[in-house]
Amino acid sequence: MASRFDTVSFLSDYGLQDEFVGVVTSVIRGIASHVTVVDVTHGVPPHDIRAGGLALARAAQYLAPGVVLAVVDPGVGTDRRAVAVEVGDREAVFVGPDNGVLASAVAMVGGARAAVELTDPAFHLPAPGPTFAGRDVFAPVAAHLCNGAALADLGEPVDPGQLLPGVLPVSRMEAGKLVAEVLWVDRYGNVQLNVGPDEIEPFGEPLALELATGVRSASRADAYGAIAPGALGLVVDSYGLVSIAADRRSAAAELELGPGDAVILAPAEGGDGTSAPPGGHRGHSSPVSLRSRPPGRP
Amino acid sequence: MASRFDTVSFLSDYGLQDEFVGVVTSVIRGIASHVTVVDVTHGVPPHDIRAGGLALARAAQYLAPGVVLAVVDPGVGTDRRAVAVEVGDREAVFVGPDNGVLASAVAMVGGARAAVELTDPAFHLPAPGPTFAGRDVFAPVAAHLCNGAALADLGEPVDPGQLLPGVLPVSRMEAGKLVAEVLWVDRYGNVQLNVGPDEIEPFGEPLALELATGVRSASRADAYGAIAPGALGLVVDSYGLVSIAADRRSAAAELELGPGDAVILAPAEGGDGTSAPPGGHRGHSSPVSLRSRPPGRP
Amino acid sequence: MASRFDTVSFLSDYGLQDEFVGVVTSVIRGIASHVTVVDVTHGVPPHDIRAGGLALARAAQYLAPGVVLAVVDPGVGTDRRAVAVEVGDREAVFVGPDNGVLASAVAMVGGARAAVELTDPAFHLPAPGPTFAGRDVFAPVAAHLCNGAALADLGEPVDPGQLLPGVLPVSRMEAGKLVAEVLWVDRYGNVQLNVGPDEIEPFGEPLALELATGVRSASRADAYGAIAPGALGLVVDSYGLVSIAADRRSAAAELELGPGDAVILAPAEGGDGTSAPPGGHRGHSSPVSLRSRPPGRP
Repeated sequence: MASRFDTVSFLSDYGLQDEFVGVVTSVIRGIASHVTVVDVTHGVPPHDIRAGGLALARAAQYLAPGVVLAVVDPGVGTDRRAVAVEVGDREAVFVGPDNGVLASAVAMVGGARAAVELTDPAFHLPAPGPTFAGRDVFAPVAAHLCNGAALADLGEPVDPGQLLPGVLPVSRMEAGKLVAEVLWVDRYGNVQLNVGPDEIEPFGEPLALELATGVRSASRADAYGAIAPGALGLVVDSYGLVSIAADRRSAAAELELGPGDAVILAPAEGGDGTSAPPGGHRGHSSPVSLRSRPPGRP
Repeated sequence: MASRFDTVSFLSDYGLQDEFVGVVTSVIRGIASHVTVVDVTHGVPPHDIRAGGLALARAAQYLAPGVVLAVVDPGVGTDRRAVAVEVGDREAVFVGPDNGVLASAVAMVGGARAAVELTDPAFHLPAPGPTFAGRDVFAPVAAHLCNGAALADLGEPVDPGQLLPGVLPVSRMEAGKLVAEVLWVDRYGNVQLNVGPDEIEPFGEPLALELATGVRSASRADAYGAIAPGALGLVVDSYGLVSIAADRRSAAAELELGPGDAVILAPAEGGDGTSAPPGGHRGHSSPVSLRSRPPGRP
Repeated sequence: MASRFDTVSFLSDYGLQDEFVGVVTSVIRGIASHVTVVDVTHGVPPHDIRAGGLALARAAQYLAPGVVLAVVDPGVGTDRRAVAVEVGDREAVFVGPDNGVLASAVAMVGGARAAVELTDPAFHLPAPGPTFAGRDVFAPVAAHLCNGAALADLGEPVDPGQLLPGVLPVSRMEAGKLVAEVLWVDRYGNVQLNVGPDEIEPFGEPLALELATGVRSASRADAYGAIAPGALGLVVDSYGLVSIAADRRSAAAELELGPGDAVILAPAEGGDGTSAPPGGHRGHSSPVSLRSRPPGRP
């Protein structure tokens, strides 16, 4: 067969402490020795399909043409389907479990055009046990796709409309406030919200952040380094979303925020209520107004 | 010289926090620019020869033809030997310290056919100090092997029978119970035992696990996701060994088990004593019977 | 354009938990598909320019010809300059922020011969926000350099003498004692000092280490494994510097030492005051003389 792809972009929750990633990479290259495996990340928290799906979606438009292998697979060995999905916009085939981890990324690059369930064992390795599908199913399938195997050869066709969707939280207005959710906390402690810059434009400057741990004030900033010492800033991040940040400190640690936590954004009491001034902004320090946790919140 | 190998599979206890892995990789590619370095894992606990040897053995049969470089080397700079070992079954040369870390993997792929001590400094880098043999000895030797250097050129021959063996614990029956040991705890908290599924077949369903922290009950399960919430399961893992697992929880954390710990498997009191029923199994929850730690155990 | 380089050596403080490294790698290979990205390390502590600069300097002489990409960039999005720097001794272009992270490594390989600020957006990606210059500026510039782009095409020339220098602490003699500083603590807990072996030669054997936590005794050793159980050794490490070490224990954890901490080396009270004997040395155990922390020290 003619070689079709020369890159496998590989994301998982395998971590790097064990040899899982090395073994999957070795299996791929043992079958398709011309392939380069690019590790997108293997630091997805164990079993965290949502976090894996969001990381893959953030990366999707930057990945090289080829196979995108995503393995966050708590249901390995059960009747969850293993699938390969061809997408609309580019030369790429997504391979992984049909549990939602692929969904947002597939949507980002044009949606699923065709899909199969990976039912033909001729493309798998013999396995002493069912727990390492990355090695025994997904890696050899990815390699065979790189070698030119047709999607239809890998197994039974699946209606793309029947693939499990990802679930992305949507922010909403309530009583003049924007009820948002933390999508992602990165290594630096930046807190990405499911909020675009347009949504907070009416709130003026600074904004109030209502959190389980209290109310904080934050001002828009053009860069992390433009946030004043001790202050919080709202920065439009590299994905075009609003993130809560601090300069060389972890906003997430300071605010005790993690993925899935609620953040309510509102005009600050005593704020000017007007739009932010044009040009560069600088965050500023503000006293922390600690209040007791609202009843019924963790 | 004609190129012989194009892959170095590299395992170490270097971690990824420092630049050790990057420097070794750069040295290899500086000498043999056609080589791809596949990182098996660098997450072996510092100085842990047993853990490194087990990880290499689990990976061995999946590694690409080429050089297998394994550096877990607490004795670096002492008179422990640095060796290269050709194996029986496949096109591979194992390179590393002769301290046992290579032994189980070499045995897995057919045993040592020939070996040399890496005594010829012409294949090493000049070194300001003796502490980084990965960079100064093993990496250049691996690269020269890929470039076609003969094993015999690298140094003095060593009788393969004189290489330091690995030590694998063997389970044993005592008074109708199987005394086993934890080989490995993976990122997910699955606890691999030195026990094959045949060995526990006579014990019926469920089994009792006698641990330093108490006695727990566990049932066989075909997949992690088939273990009931709160229960423990015994799963035949991807290496064909019995592992103690839980569904989306860390069995190791819950049971306070780590590599080398003892686990005694026995028929459960009140268990049926018969073989497990055919077909799918589901684990089930059981009360935890905590007892005081036996005297003399940590 | 003719391909110029086929390797990008990549160091950052991105960590491996998020997909930053994978995305940068994908962008590079999307523009220059012939390039291999070698990860030097991504474990530099967040925002730690000094640690990143030291790691890059330790690695510099071993890196393959090509682009050296170093991103530790707390000032991303501010007016800190993004630069590319050609060096004197070898075929290499360093790319990163002009904040000192490149300086020591550039000096190690011959110094800057020419430099430009990366002002031409034709070599960058369009960016939704300014916070991920690794993806949007540095990665595409590195790839275009590999593809043969000339340094002068990337932006405005910068006087190499105007690049921000790195700051390396220098040890000094005070009242017959050597006042040194910890440069680096590696994964094993070895404590590298800014001290060469010549500087401690007059102190005889053993030496006293005056630390914030007390005074300890240490003897020279040729290898970690030559340090006696419970003792501390002074080992000339793989960079030719003196490091405080222990055999299979973390000296740093035991002594509560981290980068930047002060260490005073002196002849031991009751030491012989003569030069060390020739041949192999062995460290020896010594009682720990704990004293209260000196006033004014942390």
